[in-house]
Amino acid sequence: MVQLQRLAIAPSQLLPPHLSLTPEQHHYLCRVLRLGAGDRFIAMDGQGHWWLAELGADTSQAQVLEQLPVQHELPIAVVLLVAMPKGNGMDDIVRQATELGVAAIVPILSDRTLLQPSPQKLDRWRRIAQEAAEQSERQMIPELFEPHPWSQALARWHQSNADAYLCEARGNYLPLLEVLQFRRHPAQLPTWPDSAIVIATGPEGGWTEAEIGAAIAAGYTPVSLGRRVLRAVTAPLVALALIAASLESSCAP
Amino acid sequence: MVQLQRLAIAPSQLLPPHLSLTPEQHHYLCRVLRLGAGDRFIAMDGQGHWWLAELGADTSQAQVLEQLPVQHELPIAVVLLVAMPKGNGMDDIVRQATELGVAAIVPILSDRTLLQPSPQKLDRWRRIAQEAAEQSERQMIPELFEPHPWSQALARWHQSNADAYLCEARGNYLPLLEVLQFRRHPAQLPTWPDSAIVIATGPEGGWTEAEIGAAIAAGYTPVSLGRRVLRAVTAPLVALALIAASLESSCAP
Repeated sequence: MVQLQRLAIAPSQLLPPHLSLTPEQHHYLCRVLRLGAGDRFIAMDGQGHWWLAELGADTSQAQVLEQLPVQHELPIAVVLLVAMPKGNGMDDIVRQATELGVAAIVPILSDRTLLQPSPQKLDRWRRIAQEAAEQSERQMIPELFEPHPWSQALARWHQSNADAYLCEARGNYLPLLEVLQFRRHPAQLPTWPDSAIVIATGPEGGWTEAEIGAAIAAGYTPVSLGRRVLRAVTAPLVALALIAASLESSCAP
Repeated sequence: MVQLQRLAIAPSQLLPPHLSLTPEQHHYLCRVLRLGAGDRFIAMDGQGHWWLAELGADTSQAQVLEQLPVQHELPIAVVLLVAMPKGNGMDDIVRQATELGVAAIVPILSDRTLLQPSPQKLDRWRRIAQEAAEQSERQMIPELFEPHPWSQALARWHQSNADAYLCEARGNYLPLLEVLQFRRHPAQLPTWPDSAIVIATGPEGGWTEAEIGAAIAAGYTPVSLGRRVLRAVTAPLVALALIAASLESSCAP
């Protein structure tokens, strides 16, 4: 299959079926990429829309032939319950979790969480999620919930409609990747909001025994993220990277 | 297999075979964990050493029976070639790549790299790698190489003794996780430094066509990190998380 070149356009350039090109875009397509009249490319408007486009006889103009389906979202929703790390760590978590395809982020007040965020913090995290969603060409902006105490989070996001995992460094738990490879195939699951994967990562110092016990009682499967000690800001990204890759892998059972 | 409880100790508490316990540790072991005389636990000194220990008849004292092998390192070495992102992005990459078990980091000067780091920067990255290795209980500190132009890096780290992968967002390449699952089993490979996995991640804007072509000519397999657009600081972490999980997964072929 020939890989079509992609071109970022402004929405205002498009008046279907006409697509006007800026001099720079024209130069890029015809001089840099050496496309000519009748050659095709993909026009992306930065708002999640892609079009198949074709250069006209006058190559400073193009026509859009059809809108293309863009699938950047994961096949089922992933909800991240994340015990808030100290400092500004949540900024990085929200930004990178959004890049990695998360559907919702729930800041968790755990026994070892020091941070009690202000409403301004929550606004800030929502802005970061929106910006990151735009930059990474997401089609949806992840929902950022109010901080939840652990017991309330477990009551709301539990195992009945979701595969729920608790990441825990201590204890000889199975690696998350192995557990994911034995879970039901996404195609056999009902779709969001009826189904989701819920993944919980702990604070500096880890979950307390009581928190782990409560999660197991709520149907969470404890899993390991590997043999190394990860910081509270790194663990959610590792977990989401493994979930996304596993969901998008055709090797899944 | 019974999972032994772990206890963090200060190196000064240990005078083999004697291990003195603080009142808090004694309380934790005997009251919280309900261990008694003759029960065993793992003592960790926070410097990468683990001992099998046994509570004495006087449970405020313990004896160490033997030093335990700690295996936090990946079974084969992973070398990260990383096109330097703008700003202070390399700080985060070095810190998190170290947490994720990388053996060596090679900053790459690519066609689209804006950063030409000073020698002070390299010193700074080496300090970050050392600190992160200590915090994440690594047994080795990742080697931080001088920045290499892409062609020189390809001449030095190529496919002959390593599985080499190039992460590239454009192009319909197979997902890294799938490719890893079909590679040779680690046990069939010679050990470091004779063998390694080399993974290369690109700059903001991606690799140029010429850079991709040179990598393929050097034996690199182009791979995808998923359907979302990742920033240059996030891509290396996703790649390393997938490699580490794949190497430590007993599902590997």
